[in-house]
Amino acid sequence: MSDPEDRFPRSRALFERAAAVIPCGIYGHTAPAAALPGAFPYYAARAQGSRYWDVDGHEYIDYLCGYGPVILGHQHPEVEEAAARQQREALCVNHPGPIMVELAEYLVSQVSFSAWGVFGKNGSDMTTWAVQVAREHTRRRKVLKVAGAYHGIDPWCTPGHAGLIEEDRAHIHEFRWNDLDSFESRLREFRGDIAAVILTPFHHPAFGASEMPKPEFWPTIEAACRREGIVLILDDIRAGFRLDLGGSHTVFGFEPDLICFCKALANGHALSATLGRHELRVAASKVFLAGSYWNSPPAMAAALACLKILKRDDAVSHLRLLGTRLMDGLVAAGARQGYEVIASGPPAVPFLTFAEDPDLRRRQRFCAEVTRRGALFHPHHNWFLSTAHTALDIDETLRIADEAFALLRESEPQPPRCRP
Amino acid sequence: MSDPEDRFPRSRALFERAAAVIPCGIYGHTAPAAALPGAFPYYAARAQGSRYWDVDGHEYIDYLCGYGPVILGHQHPEVEEAAARQQREALCVNHPGPIMVELAEYLVSQVSFSAWGVFGKNGSDMTTWAVQVAREHTRRRKVLKVAGAYHGIDPWCTPGHAGLIEEDRAHIHEFRWNDLDSFESRLREFRGDIAAVILTPFHHPAFGASEMPKPEFWPTIEAACRREGIVLILDDIRAGFRLDLGGSHTVFGFEPDLICFCKALANGHALSATLGRHELRVAASKVFLAGSYWNSPPAMAAALACLKILKRDDAVSHLRLLGTRLMDGLVAAGARQGYEVIASGPPAVPFLTFAEDPDLRRRQRFCAEVTRRGALFHPHHNWFLSTAHTALDIDETLRIADEAFALLRESEPQPPRCRP
Repeated sequence: MSDPEDRFPRSRALFERAAAVIPCGIYGHTAPAAALPGAFPYYAARAQGSRYWDVDGHEYIDYLCGYGPVILGHQHPEVEEAAARQQREALCVNHPGPIMVELAEYLVSQVSFSAWGVFGKNGSDMTTWAVQVAREHTRRRKVLKVAGAYHGIDPWCTPGHAGLIEEDRAHIHEFRWNDLDSFESRLREFRGDIAAVILTPFHHPAFGASEMPKPEFWPTIEAACRREGIVLILDDIRAGFRLDLGGSHTVFGFEPDLICFCKALANGHALSATLGRHELRVAASKVFLAGSYWNSPPAMAAALACLKILKRDDAVSHLRLLGTRLMDGLVAAGARQGYEVIASGPPAVPFLTFAEDPDLRRRQRFCAEVTRRGALFHPHHNWFLSTAHTALDIDETLRIADEAFALLRESEPQPPRCRP
Repeated sequence: MSDPEDRFPRSRALFERAAAVIPCGIYGHTAPAAALPGAFPYYAARAQGSRYWDVDGHEYIDYLCGYGPVILGHQHPEVEEAAARQQREALCVNHPGPIMVELAEYLVSQVSFSAWGVFGKNGSDMTTWAVQVAREHTRRRKVLKVAGAYHGIDPWCTPGHAGLIEEDRAHIHEFRWNDLDSFESRLREFRGDIAAVILTPFHHPAFGASEMPKPEFWPTIEAACRREGIVLILDDIRAGFRLDLGGSHTVFGFEPDLICFCKALANGHALSATLGRHELRVAASKVFLAGSYWNSPPAMAAALACLKILKRDDAVSHLRLLGTRLMDGLVAAGARQGYEVIASGPPAVPFLTFAEDPDLRRRQRFCAEVTRRGALFHPHHNWFLSTAHTALDIDETLRIADEAFALLRESEPQPPRCRP
């Protein structure tokens, strides 16, 4: 790899300016340190369809999709037209528009167990509110979550460690994904005081491979929640609408009591939503919910357009087919160079790890080489597909990946074993 | 007043549909129950400049401005063009755009004490994060706030009572606005464990008159924070950029350590910001901050355009003059009918109460009559002016208010006293 200093002069200049006026220059999940400093783009110039351009003029096939919100491709004309039409009428107004009612009706009609919906702007808005609704409904305190699961940035769940006090998590307790013994142990420990279990449909820890649920995982969780009167919250913020338009629980054969959506809901327009069962309506009515921009109609118009296009175009099948083609191809390409690579997560929200990669360096080098050749592969965060991705995009990506695997192979003095 | 059933048939029909699929139909601060059911609009159709139209075709001179975000009038062409131009390039992309750096540089250059800035989507995002930064910086737990002050919807500060547990506010302690004895009593009580004092620049409790700070209020608070190593957080979400473009503290002659902006920052586009002192940069770097849409460039482009227009057009003077004309006129109009009405808050963010109105019915009736005649006066929430409001708007509003006061006067069997 040539000197990365040569590839990102504009990014470096911007980052130097940013470092003077923004803590860390770039913070949060898009911070350079979270990806591959020097090999990964820092600043966005534009995006269109399946393509993303950084400020240094590099073009990428975009497998991050804005870290998830973009499901129909960037700048989808029908979504943008729906949002713009609404925006010319009412951007930030004193009351909700009719679109809020239409969108709630549509979502409730699509998500089987739900009787009502509310809207926010961030995923965190919704997970924090859902926990309050569960506490109000049950009059209990405890919340069970999975270790390493991401549910947002509020103090009860942030992956950060700074600025927290003991009370923030006094009643938040963790168990291990797919480890039903650890779940049942928590159940016994806090029986009668558990308000909610909050889970993502599958486990996608930062840095690690994604893990699908064991067959008995969801039925056991669901039955325990019913039996003990615990509110089951599905955090479908990341996977929602990519696995099933009715919510990701349908794929795994269970029903939650509350479901939180965000990301793919409005193809990149800022909107989140929580839908819930009839039984939780009274509690939901009582927990205060408001924000400066939460009635804004354009994002809701974008969402309704996005959801209808997803259905019309059978996006779920498209994403599954493309994701399968991509991940099968990557596994095969790795094998040709003697690497055992593992595709994890659902094909529509995939991730790739190396079987032998104790310090993540192999994955990081692979992703760096693919990225510099024009396909944006994040080394530490799962990837996303959109309906704008084509079979040609996938084939170009696989050609790039072949080169990257070959380069990796050449440079490694001790090639790893690969199971046949 | 004629039967309100006649005035809002479309609103009623929408609300009936909404009640089936949304808890409370409309929730939060825009819920009908929070205003004047039957007399106040429920659903927005559109807005332009200083005008707002509900779905039943009523036009209002808009003194709510989307509850604050709209400071240049609805659909300001320069702001919308800046946002749209950016949106065509990059709506929801994988990294920040150059506009994030430009906006942070601009804000830091305008807000005297600040060395850095970060961005979110909601006001609550910023107040909750600021509290964490203060706790990280001080390694202390306690937060002092004013009783009845609104800082957002997160569990530590929500005005709601549902879904909370004891730990949410274990270290949140209140004192009374303008009551320095109650402040100093809290200081003594928790000396050495106070991380932050969070305050709005003036007090604007729901339902009540706004209260400006006593002359010794801010100097005393500021000195105590410096002396005790407490982080002073100015929640300038509601008043920010309406009193002074450099932050509302400049009006009152003090400097906070952190300042939270939202509302007027981007003329209605969803954006919030926190700016801070150099000394807090390390803590700010450590407290995780991220959201699905937080790097989105269009709202940042809107903000930069908005802030530059506010400066170019001397918006602060315009708002002060118009607000003074409005409130002086209302006080005089009330007096002509024998009512002592009180203008409270800064003229740019004014509110009106009746001196004698123990159950708020007089204010509610007055606001209902003004609103049905075409000027949106909220009975329980302070009002906002925008630079799109004109002297003609104010004069039309005062003509309407004259009618409303006269009607009120006619209908009251026992007119109240009015001081000469």
